[in-house]
Order: sequence, then C-alpha cells, then structure tokens
Amino acid sequence: MTEPLRLALSSKGAYEEATMRFLERAGLSVWRPNPRQYVGRISGLPNVEVLFQRTEDIVHKVVDGSADLGITGYDLVAEHGGDAPNLHVVIEDLGFRRCELVLAVPEGWLDITTVADLADLSVDLRRTGRTLRVATKFPNLTRDFLYRHGVNYFSLVDAHGALEAAPTLGYADIIADLSETGVTLRDNRLRVLDGGVILRAQACLIASRRTLRDQPAKLEAARTIIELSEARLRTRQFRLITANVQGESAEAVAQHVISQMETAGEQGPTIADIYPKHGTVDGGPRWFGVTIIVPAHLLLPAVDHLRRAGSSGITVTSPDYVFDACSPAYERLLRSLEECR
Amino acid sequence: MTEPLRLALSSKGAYEEATMRFLERAGLSVWRPNPRQYVGRISGLPNVEVLFQRTEDIVHKVVDGSADLGITGYDLVAEHGGDAPNLHVVIEDLGFRRCELVLAVPEGWLDITTVADLADLSVDLRRTGRTLRVATKFPNLTRDFLYRHGVNYFSLVDAHGALEAAPTLGYADIIADLSETGVTLRDNRLRVLDGGVILRAQACLIASRRTLRDQPAKLEAARTIIELSEARLRTRQFRLITANVQGESAEAVAQHVISQMETAGEQGPTIADIYPKHGTVDGGPRWFGVTIIVPAHLLLPAVDHLRRAGSSGITVTSPDYVFDACSPAYERLLRSLEECR
Amino acid sequence: MTEPLRLALSSKGAYEEATMRFLERAGLSVWRPNPRQYVGRISGLPNVEVLFQRTEDIVHKVVDGSADLGITGYDLVAEHGGDAPNLHVVIEDLGFRRCELVLAVPEGWLDITTVADLADLSVDLRRTGRTLRVATKFPNLTRDFLYRHGVNYFSLVDAHGALEAAPTLGYADIIADLSETGVTLRDNRLRVLDGGVILRAQACLIASRRTLRDQPAKLEAARTIIELSEARLRTRQFRLITANVQGESAEAVAQHVISQMETAGEQGPTIADIYPKHGTVDGGPRWFGVTIIVPAHLLLPAVDHLRRAGSSGITVTSPDYVFDACSPAYERLLRSLEECR
Amino acid sequence: MTEPLRLALSSKGAYEEATMRFLERAGLSVWRPNPRQYVGRISGLPNVEVLFQRTEDIVHKVVDGSADLGITGYDLVAEHGGDAPNLHVVIEDLGFRRCELVLAVPEGWLDITTVADLADLSVDLRRTGRTLRVATKFPNLTRDFLYRHGVNYFSLVDAHGALEAAPTLGYADIIADLSETGVTLRDNRLRVLDGGVILRAQACLIASRRTLRDQPAKLEAARTIIELSEARLRTRQFRLITANVQGESAEAVAQHVISQMETAGEQGPTIADIYPKHGTVDGGPRWFGVTIIVPAHLLLPAVDHLRRAGSSGITVTSPDYVFDACSPAYERLLRSLEECR
Amino acid sequence: MTEPLRLALSSKGAYEEATMRFLERAGLSVWRPNPRQYVGRISGLPNVEVLFQRTEDIVHKVVDGSADLGITGYDLVAEHGGDAPNLHVVIEDLGFRRCELVLAVPEGWLDITTVADLADLSVDLRRTGRTLRVATKFPNLTRDFLYRHGVNYFSLVDAHGALEAAPTLGYADIIADLSETGVTLRDNRLRVLDGGVILRAQACLIASRRTLRDQPAKLEAARTIIELSEARLRTRQFRLITANVQGESAEAVAQHVISQMETAGEQGPTIADIYPKHGTVDGGPRWFGVTIIVPAHLLLPAVDHLRRAGSSGITVTSPDYVFDACSPAYERLLRSLEECR
Amino acid sequence: MTEPLRLALSSKGAYEEATMRFLERAGLSVWRPNPRQYVGRISGLPNVEVLFQRTEDIVHKVVDGSADLGITGYDLVAEHGGDAPNLHVVIEDLGFRRCELVLAVPEGWLDITTVADLADLSVDLRRTGRTLRVATKFPNLTRDFLYRHGVNYFSLVDAHGALEAAPTLGYADIIADLSETGVTLRDNRLRVLDGGVILRAQACLIASRRTLRDQPAKLEAARTIIELSEARLRTRQFRLITANVQGESAEAVAQHVISQMETAGEQGPTIADIYPKHGTVDGGPRWFGVTIIVPAHLLLPAVDHLRRAGSSGITVTSPDYVFDACSPAYERLLRSLEECR
Repeated sequence: MTEPLRLALSSKGAYEEATMRFLERAGLSVWRPNPRQYVGRISGLPNVEVLFQRTEDIVHKVVDGSADLGITGYDLVAEHGGDAPNLHVVIEDLGFRRCELVLAVPEGWLDITTVADLADLSVDLRRTGRTLRVATKFPNLTRDFLYRHGVNYFSLVDAHGALEAAPTLGYADIIADLSETGVTLRDNRLRVLDGGVILRAQACLIASRRTLRDQPAKLEAARTIIELSEARLRTRQFRLITANVQGESAEAVAQHVISQMETAGEQGPTIADIYPKHGTVDGGPRWFGVTIIVPAHLLLPAVDHLRRAGSSGITVTSPDYVFDACSPAYERLLRSLEECR
Repeated sequence: MTEPLRLALSSKGAYEEATMRFLERAGLSVWRPNPRQYVGRISGLPNVEVLFQRTEDIVHKVVDGSADLGITGYDLVAEHGGDAPNLHVVIEDLGFRRCELVLAVPEGWLDITTVADLADLSVDLRRTGRTLRVATKFPNLTRDFLYRHGVNYFSLVDAHGALEAAPTLGYADIIADLSETGVTLRDNRLRVLDGGVILRAQACLIASRRTLRDQPAKLEAARTIIELSEARLRTRQFRLITANVQGESAEAVAQHVISQMETAGEQGPTIADIYPKHGTVDGGPRWFGVTIIVPAHLLLPAVDHLRRAGSSGITVTSPDYVFDACSPAYERLLRSLEECR
Repeated sequence: MTEPLRLALSSKGAYEEATMRFLERAGLSVWRPNPRQYVGRISGLPNVEVLFQRTEDIVHKVVDGSADLGITGYDLVAEHGGDAPNLHVVIEDLGFRRCELVLAVPEGWLDITTVADLADLSVDLRRTGRTLRVATKFPNLTRDFLYRHGVNYFSLVDAHGALEAAPTLGYADIIADLSETGVTLRDNRLRVLDGGVILRAQACLIASRRTLRDQPAKLEAARTIIELSEARLRTRQFRLITANVQGESAEAVAQHVISQMETAGEQGPTIADIYPKHGTVDGGPRWFGVTIIVPAHLLLPAVDHLRRAGSSGITVTSPDYVFDACSPAYERLLRSLEECR
Repeated sequence: MTEPLRLALSSKGAYEEATMRFLERAGLSVWRPNPRQYVGRISGLPNVEVLFQRTEDIVHKVVDGSADLGITGYDLVAEHGGDAPNLHVVIEDLGFRRCELVLAVPEGWLDITTVADLADLSVDLRRTGRTLRVATKFPNLTRDFLYRHGVNYFSLVDAHGALEAAPTLGYADIIADLSETGVTLRDNRLRVLDGGVILRAQACLIASRRTLRDQPAKLEAARTIIELSEARLRTRQFRLITANVQGESAEAVAQHVISQMETAGEQGPTIADIYPKHGTVDGGPRWFGVTIIVPAHLLLPAVDHLRRAGSSGITVTSPDYVFDACSPAYERLLRSLEECR
Repeated sequence: MTEPLRLALSSKGAYEEATMRFLERAGLSVWRPNPRQYVGRISGLPNVEVLFQRTEDIVHKVVDGSADLGITGYDLVAEHGGDAPNLHVVIEDLGFRRCELVLAVPEGWLDITTVADLADLSVDLRRTGRTLRVATKFPNLTRDFLYRHGVNYFSLVDAHGALEAAPTLGYADIIADLSETGVTLRDNRLRVLDGGVILRAQACLIASRRTLRDQPAKLEAARTIIELSEARLRTRQFRLITANVQGESAEAVAQHVISQMETAGEQGPTIADIYPKHGTVDGGPRWFGVTIIVPAHLLLPAVDHLRRAGSSGITVTSPDYVFDACSPAYERLLRSLEECR
Repeated sequence: MTEPLRLALSSKGAYEEATMRFLERAGLSVWRPNPRQYVGRISGLPNVEVLFQRTEDIVHKVVDGSADLGITGYDLVAEHGGDAPNLHVVIEDLGFRRCELVLAVPEGWLDITTVADLADLSVDLRRTGRTLRVATKFPNLTRDFLYRHGVNYFSLVDAHGALEAAPTLGYADIIADLSETGVTLRDNRLRVLDGGVILRAQACLIASRRTLRDQPAKLEAARTIIELSEARLRTRQFRLITANVQGESAEAVAQHVISQMETAGEQGPTIADIYPKHGTVDGGPRWFGVTIIVPAHLLLPAVDHLRRAGSSGITVTSPDYVFDACSPAYERLLRSLEECR
C-alpha cells in the first residue's frame, strides 16, 4: 500500500474553522474524530491523511517534508519559508483570513507619519547614541522592508508575548505586527505609518516539492485537492445566466448578445430552441433559450442587455466549480517540480 | 467625488442578524468593523455606506432624508411614516420578521371575544363615567382601527416599558401590541380578539424620494440593491428543471410538455438534442434535453408530467436570482419619483 | 375535512437538529412554535402535522398507527419493530446519525479478541457454573447475533442507565451498545471485538402501512415527503456539468464525449450551438454547449475528458434534487400496501 | 481493603448541575473525569465511589442495593420505591429541583375545575360506555390519588413520549404530570385542577438499608455525607450576629437581650468584655461583645432589638454549617437499620 | 389585604443581571417565572411585587408613583427626575454599572482639548453664522453643564439612534454621551475633553415619597429592602479579625491593641480567655482570644500589629452584613417623607 | 513617583480565568479594560501594574527582570528557570491547574511498562544502530529524568506542534508531555509508563530577586500580594467552630475540649460566658461560648467531641484568610534577597 498524502491544517480556533469551511465548500469534508486527536481524514479521499498542527508549525512541516501539502498564513510562509528550496506556494490566496503586517508607532509621535520620517528619526537617534528598537515576530520581513525603505539604523527585539504592549512597557520603540482590523492597535494607542504595510497576507496552500516529485501517487492526490480548491475559488468571479430571449432567428439573438462583448460568455452564447406554449404567428418573433457565463461584477449590465432584446425568465446560478481549460495552479506546480529534479 | 448612498440597517439583535442574512443571500455582503461602530460597507458597492441604527429610528432617518434607503419593520413604517411625502415603500415584504399588531384583552374577560363586543363594552363603560384605556406604542394605527370598527370611546395610554404587563399592573384595560407567536401574550394571560389583527407586518425596504430624485448616482446605487433583492425574493417562487425526455422529435416532446400548460415554462420548453451514448435504432425513439422553469409549488406535478413522457435524469435547481423582463419595484420607484418632481 | 398525515420527529437535542436540517434541505421546513410544544407544521404542506416525540417512542407510534410516518434510528426500528406487520421501512438510510451496535469487552481481556473467542469463553464459564452476562438495551438484536455466531450460553442484563459502566460496576461482563466514534467505549476502558458489529444504523424513514393504505389523502401527503427526501438524497451522487467544447460538428463533439462511457451522462450529452463572439473561420473549429450529468466521484475524470477535446468554461452545479424515472421508495411502499390488503 | 460506599447521582443536564452545586456547598466536591465516564470520586473521601446514572434509574439502584446512597427526585422515590423494604429516605428535601405532580385538563373544559368535578365526569362517561383516560408516567401515585378522591372509573394510559401533547393528539383525556412553573402546561393549553396537586416533590437523599446495615465502613462514610448535607441545609435557617453593646454590666446587657426571647440565641447570648479604646468614665456605660444565633427570618427584629440597647458595629455572618446536638437524619437512619435486622 | 410594595427593576440584559446579583447578595432573591413575564416576587417578602421595566422607564414609574421603589441608573435619575417633587434618592451608589456622561469631540479637532476651548469655538462659530451642534440623549444635564462652563452658543440635537456616529454622519458636531470604558468613543474616533465629565453615575435606589408616606405597610416593606441593601454595601469597608494573642493579662493585651488606634475596632477589642492546651507556667504569658472589626484597607497593618504582640491563628472573615447603630439611608428617607407632608 | 510593581499574568483562555478567580478570592481583583489590551490594574493597589502575557513567556519576563512577580506553571519554571539566579519561587503551589509531565509510549508496546524497560530498550536499539527518539517541549527536565533513571542512549526531538501525534506520524518513538487527566494521551493511543511521572506541577508565584531587592517600594507591594495569597491558601486547611457547651465551669469545659488534643484549637479554646435565657438552677450546669480553630479534615471528629460534652448550636465558618504568626513565604523571599546581595 502506498503512503498517503499528508495535508497539514490548523488545529485550533478561528483558523481551523475557516479552513474547514473553505474545504467543505470545495467538496473536501474533513473528519476529525474529536478535538483531542491530531490525525483526520477527508471523506472520499482514502489516500489523504490530515495532520492537525499549530498554524505556526505548518510551514516547518512542509519545509522539512513531513507534510506534503499545508494550508497556513502567507505571512508565516513569507517569513519562515522565503528561501526554503523545498517549499512551493500552490495557491497564494485562498480568500480567507486576510491581514496585513504593518509598522506602527505610538499615537503620540505626531511628527512621524511616514516611513521616510522613520528613516530620519533613526539617523537622529543614532547621533545621540541610541538605536531605534523594533519589536516583531517577523524579523526577516521587517529587516528587508526597513532596509529597502532607507531605515538603516535599528535593532530588532525578539519579543516574547503580546507585541502591542511593547512600546507601553518600554522594551521597544515601535512594532511590526499583524493587524486584521486595526482595532487592537488603536486599543494599545498605536498608529500605522503611511506606507507602512510590509505585507498583505491571507491563507494559502503550500506544497513540499521533493515528496510530491518522488511519489506520483501523492502528486495525484494533491491534484484533486488543488483542482477542486482552484475551481471553487474561480466561482466567485462568474455567474451563469439562462434566459428566454426573443428574436427573429438564433443568429439575430446571437448578434444582439455578442454586441456587448464583455457579457457575451467566454466563447459566445449557447442557444437552443424554445417551443412556444402559446403557438407562434408566422413571421412573428420566436423565442430562444440562451445560456452565457459572465463576470460576477457585470451581472446587472448583462441582465439589462438581455432585457433590451426582450428577454424574460432570466435565471442566475452560482456554479459550485468553474474549471478552466487547464489548472494554472497545478501546471505551475508541475513546472516547479521539473525544476527541482 | 459623489456622495454615497446611505442605507440604514438595524444595529442590534435578531433583527440585525436576519437583515444581514437576507442581504448576504442577495449577494450584498455587509461589513461592519465591529459591533461598537455604526458605519459599514457593502462589498463590491463602494458608493454605498451602511448606517447601523435602532430599528425604531430607521423610519425617521429615511423620512428626513438623512438615509436614502432603509430596511425596517412595516409596522413602524405604517405608524410613523404613513403620510410622510418623502417616504416610498419599495418592497413591502422582504420575507422575514413577520409579526402582527393585535388587540388583546385579559383572558378573564369571557364575554368579550370580538371587536364588536369591545365596541359595546366601551359604550357601557362610558355610561358609568369610565373610559376604555388602551395601552399601545402604535397610537395612529390603533386609533384608526378602533374608529373603523365602531369603537368610539376610548383613551390611548402612552405606555412606558413592557406593554403586556399593563392590564395586570392596572394602568390600562387592554393593549394593542406586536406579537410573533402569541406566547408572550399567553404568558401574561392576555387573549387576542377575533378580528383583532390591526396589521400584518414584516421587514420592508423603504426609500427617500427627494434624495434619490436629486442625485442620479444614488439612484443608480439604489437600483442595484433593489434589483438584487427583488430577483432574490423571486427565486422562492420558481424551480428550474432539466430533464432527458424521450420522443420521436423535438416537436413531439414539446407537444407533450406544453399539454400541461402551467408547468410548461414561461414561454415554453427549451429543447436541445441529446446524442445517445448507446446509439439509436432507426425510427426508434430519440432523447432530448428539456429545460423549463416552473412555479415552486408545482414541482412534483411537473416532474410527474415529464415522467409520463418517459423522462429520466430529472434535475432541479434553485437559481440564485430570477430577473423579470423589467424590475417592478424599481419601475414603481421611478414613477413615484416622477410624481414628486 | 380530512385527517392530516402525522409525521413523528425526534423532539430533542442533536437528533432533532439533524432531522430538521435534513428536511430543510429537502425543501420541507418544519415549524415548531417553541421547544415546550409538541405539535408542529411543515410550511407549504397544510395537511401534515408534525408530532415531536422522544426518539425511542417514534417506532411505537408508527407501529400502533398513531403516527403515519416517522424519522428515527434504524437501530430502534430493527430492535423494536422487526416483526411488526404494520411497519414499513421507506428509506433505510437518510444519511445522518450513523452509528454501530457493537459488542465490547473490557480492555484487560487480552485473550478475547473475536466473537469466536467469546463463544469459547461462554462455554468455559458454563463449566464453572457461571454465565456470561451481557448488558444491553437491544436484547432482540443481541440475542440473535450471539446465537448466529455460536455463543449459546449467556444471560442478558436489562440495564438501567449508562451501559458503559456496567463491567466496571460489576453487574455485567460485557456490553452490546451503540457507538458513534468509539471514544466513549475507550473512556470506559472497553474494546470492540473483531467481527463484533451487530448492526450498522442511521436515521431512517418509516411508515404505518394500515393508515396509509386506508386514507388516500394521507398517502398523497406521504408521497410528497418521500419523493422530495429521496430526490434530495440522490443529489449526493451526481454533478451537472456544462462546458464549451470545441469540435468540427455536434456529432464529432458527441463522439468524443461518448468515448468515455461512464461520464457521458445518463442518456448521452445534450448539445446546443454556441454562436462565437469572435466570429468563425470557414472550416475552422466550432464551439458547442455540452451538458452532462455525471457520478459525483467521477467529476475530475469527466472534467479531464472534456479538456482533452479542448473545452473551456467548464461549470459544475449540484442540483437541489435529482428525480429518477420513478420513485423507487414510493413504488416499494405501494407494493407493501398492496400486500397488506 | 473494604468496599467503597456507592453514591448514585444524576448523570445529565440541569439535575446533575444542581446536585453538584448542592454537594459542593456542603463541602463534598465531586470529581468526574469527563462527561463520557460514569464513575467519579469525592475529594477527601477516598472510600466513596460516585456512580453517574439517569435520574430515573437511581431509585432502582438503591432499591436493589447496587448503590448505597442516592440523590434523586422524591417523585420517583414515591412512585417506584414506595413499598420497597430496602429503601430508606434519609433527607426528604434537599432544597432544589422542586416540582409538583399535578392533574391537568384541557383549558376548554370550562365545567371541570375541581377533582370532585372530575369524579362526576368519570361517572357520566361510564354511563355512556366510555372511560376517562389519564396519561401519566406515575401510575401508582395517580391511581392512589384518584381513588382517595372518589374518582373510581378511569383507565391509565402508559404514555410514550411527551405527555403534554396526549390530549391534543387524542390518546388520552387528561394527564397527571410533573410541573415546575406551569408554563409547559399552558403552552399545551392545559389547566391544573383545583385540589389537583398529587405530590409536592424535590431532590432527596435515599439509602439502601441492607448494605449499610451489613457494612459498618459504608455506614461511617454515609454518616459523613449525611451530617455535612444536613448541617449545610440548616444554615439557611440561622444567622450569627456579633455586636458591640453598651450597658452597665454584662448582666444588664444579657437582661436586655433576653427580654426578646425569640432572638436571644439558642441558650442565651455569649458575652465578653470590650476594652474601650477611648477609655471609660467611672460609673459610665461600658461596652460588651455579644454573640447570638437567631432565626434567619428574625434578622431585622434582632438587629432592631440590639440597637435599642445602644449597639454599634453589628455584623452578621452565614455559617457554612450549623450542627445540632445530634444529627436527626442520621439517628433516624440508625433506627431504621435496627428495624431491618 | 394591603397593597404590595412595587419595586421596579431593569428587565433586560446586563443591567438586569447585575441588579439581580446585587439583590441576591443582599439576601433578596428575585424570582421571575420566565423572561417573557413582567411581574415577579422576592422570596421571603410576600408583600413585595417586582415590576420588570426598561431601565429608561423606571424613573418615570417612580416619579408618577406607579412604582414605590426602583433601581436604575443615576444618570437617568439626574436627567429625568432632577426636580420631580415625588422622587427621593435613597441610596445613590449601589456599587455597580458605573459610567460617566462625557463631552466628546472628533479626534481630529487637535486645538480643542478643554471645555474652555469649546467655549471659544462656539463664539467663533457664531461669528460666522453657525451654531455648535451637540447631540445628546441628556439635554437637561448637558445644557446646565455647558452654561455653567461658559459655553453659551449651541444647539442640542435630539438624536435618534447611535449617538457616536453623529459627527461622522454630519448631523452634529460633538456629542454628550455615556461611556463606561471609553472604547466605543475611540472606535468612533472621538476624544473626551479635559474637564468634560458632566456626571459620574452608577445604579441607585430611588423611592416615591407620596406612596410610601401614605401607606405604612409599604414603608415597612421598603425598610427591609433599604436596610439589607445598605448593610450589605457596608461590608465592603470592614473585615472581622479574630486572633490568639499572648500577654500578661487581658488589660495588657487590650493596651497593645489600642495603641494603634485606627485598627482597634469600633469601640475597642473584645477579649475572652483562652484555656491553654499545653498548660501554663506560673507567671508566664497567657493567651487571649481577641476580636476586632477593622477598615478593609487596613487589614494588613492590623495583622502586623497583632503579630507584634505575639499572635497566632489570625483569622479574617467578611461578614454578610454590617449594620450601624441606625440606618442612615432609612433615616434620610423618613425625614424626606416628613417634609412632603 | 516610584515605579510600579509589575505582575505578569497569563493573558488567555482557561489559565487566565483560573488565575483571575484565584486572585479575586484572595481579595485582589484584577481589572483588564478589554481582552485586546495587555496592561491592567489591581483594585486598591495603585502601585501595581498587571502585564498580560502568554503563559510560556512569563518565566522569561521574571528571569530578565522585566516583570517583578509572575504567576505561571511550575513546569515552565522548572524547565526554563531552573538555574536562573534571578528567579525565586515564592509559593510553589497555588492550588490550581495541576498537571503532570509524563513519559508515554504507544499502547501497542506491550513489553515496555516501566522506565527500567525503557532503559533496556534503548540499549537494544543502540546495538542495532538506532536511537530512541523522545519528542518533548521540556528537554531539560526530560534529559535529567532519563539520565537519573538509567536511560543513557536517546535523542530529543524538538517537536513543532501537537506532540501526541508524533509517534503516529513517525517522527518520534515516545513522548514526554504534560497531561491533566490522561484523556488526550489515550485518544492518541499512548500509555504512561509506571514510574514515568517526571514532574508534578501546578500554578506558582515567582519573583525577580534583583528588582525586588533594589526597590523597597516594589518589595512592599509584593508583600501585600504574597501575604494575601498565602493567607487565602491556608484557609483550605482550617475551619472555625463556635459552639454552646454545657459544663460546671469554664475550666471544666476547657478540660473536656483539651482532652482531644488535635481539635483543641491552636492554643486552646477561647471561652466566654453565656447568659442563659431560661435562667439557671443553682449548682446546675452552666453554658459557655467556645471558639476553636480546627484542621479541616478533623471537622466531624471535633463536632463529635463537642457533642459529647453536651453542645448545641455548633456553627462552622470558613474564614477568608488565616494568617500565621509570620508569613513563611515572605520570610523565605527576604532570606533569598539577602543571599543575592
């Protein structure tokens, strides 16, 4: 029997819930016997084993190959896995748990509003023999960002515990920390600098290149998870419209639909005959069943356009999945595996 | 930059939840940073601002034009906005928070079972120098109703606090109050009079005529909210059926479907060819893909009718939206704006 | 006015919730005025009355005809209604509340791992004048199972209260009890025997033959509930795929789709013309709208097969219902009613 | 090692919580490893084992001696253990879970308001060949009560499930059921008859006479539980008052306190000298520390009486336990054990 | 039968809970049959009826005499009952639900930090023909405060709904609103002015002078509630210490205790003899039992002082009640009733 | 103004709650403005600042002196602070959050039941070129324990994430992990070795020697927290008994009480005169008020002994604090500070 694919998921709290909900919607129901057990299953995929891990540990698990796939925060991936050759980011944005890594200063620092101000301040401090202390749990990302923005004189404080309190407690001057809504920062009387967003992050799907490259059965299992996730995410962008449209002929109806290019479907409208229940008058207008797929944000313009042709019974559906001609995420993964051979 | 449309929603409790859920299903996700803030957004509609208000205050906000649209109880609209020229009811029934404004008397009043009995009682009381006291938070609706039903001698008590206790505590004889299930009335030993329903109410969508008339950008934003809400509500009444139907020709199949008029779709069935996987026998029956939209309560009759033609693989879908040839609610609003020019 | 159909549902806890959720999804919204009342309604079915009962009592209600339909555990049906002539199991597996009735021994009984070991033990005990005591709330099923597996010497203990504690407390040697995840058994230091699963059970729909046979109006109401439940359950097995497929002609496209038989739809693909928005080159490939219904577990193979023909815009939907050419569950019920005439 | 005393407690829901809270306050902390295990401990009493059982089963456990002590509803004890020779009620009222077993008729039976009316009705029914049907889970208590009150013609219905629905569903005419607040009865449109209270019940402590008689170690463990429970219950009736009281001498102060007999403490006031911090004037009044224990409902009269003597600094404490010269409950148990020798 | 005393309490949410908890601790257990009923009882006080009302309505109920006592926020009392002749504040601070009525300006108004700045601003605005708009639900208190602090030109906005949003939404410039922790203000980007606290408030006990004056039975019932509440509140300030203290004689021990005046008890220490278990040596030190009541914040100094005399076994108790020589709150009420004769 | 004492407490979950509850009972109410802020206060101690930290970080904070006192798990203290010269354990057992650090092996390892077996196994493994891998988050304690018990060949795995899954996932053979009830271990099919308890731990109070030594104001604040905590903990061991005892004279009563040495109070009984309310007969027995403090576990023997002398009205109280002649914990701290000068 072949070794199962190991998918590492967050084991606790809001992150676990959001991950479970996303996978459920993608048709991947995760089963965990009870909250004190750390190995689970996905219904219908017998060759997949789910490992419940702390969100912080998932990157390490994939980097060292003890998990084959993982869902975790992109912030942790960027910080801890940035240059790990075994790590490949399969889908960068799974659409949940968005947050930002930001640079924040005490509210009272009225003169420091931009990162450039911070650069100036660090120079001034250095002249007086002091160093700007920055508390963070993301030293790599923070260091890079500061250097890139001309802040050259600073020390990073390896903070234990709640970062937000560091300036108040006096063991750092400013912080670089994750923020979802900004409320916690404000509660601790901190303000985000203009231009101070170091990284925008969200949940992402990552893979171990080595183990997937070497074990085709694992790669096949990974493909199922990747394709379903990607096709599910794509549904947010499309709506499927079916309408009864009036016209002299199928071609005439098609002409009208196509005249508004961006809502004409991917290839054009699918058109079939309607057999009118009230009979037809010779030479009178006929009815056709038209099906198009349109970008979600153009739903109302598409409806309006159909109406102008004299439509009725316009129904709109959100598909469960929208697959493309190929799976871009899976293709990228294959290329990445090639490269590491 | 143009002023955003202001949509007033309930800020608390079960009403807030139900409103959010309705809008979510209509594709309008409301974002509120946290429960202590009173301004929110709708994802995808940058020109809309959500104001979280007490349910009681939303009518006033729309009446005085400080909100452009609002969702609140129809009971409050009827009581407080009845004759306000600026107020237009866009959609009267959003399908949630149904309740009734009823006239209720103490359980022990065995002889008073109808509103007519109440009229008699009020006359009797008057002869003895007393007045029937009615506690209510809806004085306008209650007064109108009582007069219309021949109760002419009464006084309305401007009740503070829990109305249901008023008869027990002795500061009113009967009450006119909202009731969802009747349980609270019974717990306080009150009984609804026969014919004592003053108003049936539910959540409704209201608009400020003046501000929408004067600001086309706001009217356009309002149209999005109205159309999506209305098209979502309409889905409750329809089901989309797709079936494989056997027949000699498309026309013959159409004939069968149409023979049961009320389940033949709006214009008639859309029919397309099926290319049989098991091959066809010359002159033998062929298969066609038939699509119809039917009233929800006729689902099983429609399925039965298709079966009689020898169907299989009958799938049924609930669309996310059903748009009509035009939007009745929006058309009514436009006419109403015309009139107030 | 005719007597309403009486549908008995579980009145408490997780069983009630799961039943409500199942029926809701089947389009049957149950309304219960409040948790202290025991009679409810189904919206849209005025001739159905819902009785809320203890899960244990539902079998008895249907057996004696005081309810016409009921949803309860198959374990209770098998134990208490096994040979009741009035009882008919309409749908055996509603897909929720799965559990197993198992035979479990103390963890410390290292030598007893199979049911055969148990048979040996019972013989040994009998030689020493003792009897193997089995605590259970399912005496009928347990007795049958033990006899069928060669365990002939035992006594059943009519257990009050928590069975799992019986071996620890000393009033039984082993138990036959329901288990969902095995966690409770392990917490009480019990182990399931190999081959010790007496019954696999889940929620099921049962009917009273006599009352349905005698009252056609009830039977008609029952049909609605049965058909909707069954058609809802069947959706789990199917997905509806719509794709834009490239090809020289509709026949050529059909040929490609049919070449992979198991994903070619029930009868074959429905194909309609797409009117290309970018125009066509003479003799160049054309596009067709293809619709097929495929088994859920073959979704990705079907997508892959379509891709090989050069498809794009492949959308996948889960229908709300999938009806068959007839309703097997309802047909079985009719035959069963025939037999009891 | 001796066998531990077995104390059976309710294993679920509100009854478990209330029992735990009562024992906790009596200094008997029950430890249950987790809600899926059925054997627990009491901290500090190594020779006691707690069995968690369904409330309904506890009477049976004590009647058959498989538990030595139990806490359960007095209603269940009266119904199921009434004449069991092994059962002894140690403390009849533990002060929680009070309820009444009542006889209730449909609200619409306007002419039946007393039990005597019911007797008449049963005679009338009998003349017409019908029998009054009474649904109940307490057949013994109900039968006795009805006979004692002259209702001689009736049949008891062995009800499955929710009794309150029985009259509505038509399988009984009236019910005899437990009621805590009357709300459930009213929700099901039932009314309690005047004089229709069959039993007033609450949680009680029961014992198995045989096992306690035969095993002195168990009896000793039982004594601890009984004494602490009883001494805890008694605290509700007493308050301990300490005051600084002015007077010429201890005797004079005592005289004043004693002059209001019912608040003078059990034996009289305990009086000790106060050494005044502001010095004393010769022949001037002196201060004494007075301690008395008074009935809880006479607290304010006692305070007033002390004030009249010129008291200050009157502090009031609720003791954790109040022990009497002997333990009445334990003495009764001993006599009961004697009798069963 | 005499009319019961009517005590109005908050009927909802956190205010209800806090009120119930306070009364429970004062020995006044309130019983409310269920959350949908509005009349309750106090166990042990049959002549008291509890009315559950909205917190906002309680002041009105007491002002117009339809309730005799009430517990509500002092902010509401000050605003609505300030000059009502029938209203008497019995206990101003019940120790829960503390909050402040504050004047807050937008965070961005950097130049306006004090109330004096606000006065200047209002003058400036007036010159330009504008008026400072202040949104508040406390117009009386706010108007008085502004006038007293030299702000003479302003208009009060009668705000519907959430005040905090008023400056953002543009219908007021600043607000005067209640704040518990300041968090809601900050979330809405408002800042409290220096010196901008209009009122410090908390729950208080109020009485109707007229009804208590005219009905002695009500006054007696009110006394029970007042005395128990007041004596309960006083316990927070005292601790009762009992110690074994070494010394040559009771007088010597007293001398030591008294030498630290503020921890010597109200009148001085109560001293009683200890009969030593290890015997005594002639002329050696003896032991005495000393009892004192000390201010809560001087507990450790008192313990230290006792230790210096060679104490051991120092136990500290919090009494349930501390009564004074008379009840100040009740005396004040009596005088207030006198005045209104 | 002097620097405040910094007390570090756990900022999250069950540990925070238990800590808050303990301190509350010790009279130290902690106030945290909201769960997103990390600095709090203790009511009544203005010179104390509370820092909310992750439980894991508190040891580090105290070790490096950035907190002066901290409450955290003794397991973390032993592992991370074992040899830190600045760390002093003030109270080792605060009575909550008890757990054990244990060595656990897979359930299937039937031959390995003791730590000695493990030593043998590690030798065997070594012969075959393998190493016993032990996953733990407590490397220091585990290494010491294994060496002390003769296990010399092993490697420690620096585990990320849930340890309990390590043997199942294959990256360790056994684990050393914290366990509260053993349930999580069993759910992951692990078994604790006999003799495999490495450490018994619970919450403890720790101090920074340096900062307390150098800042007398901090030391004084620390004393308040230490004394109140210790005196609160001591109450669990004592009960205060007050009884009315009959006897010829105070000496005779004392003699009886003292005759049972271990329940005679610390120094002996405090005895005061009772002035009998029913009068006395010359030469007849008199009554005395006796107060003793007894060990909690001897409560019933003490009550029995008093009863034998003819007592009544025996009341028992649990004090809020029991202070000793000096504070052992504070004395130890002072000595420890001395040593580090």
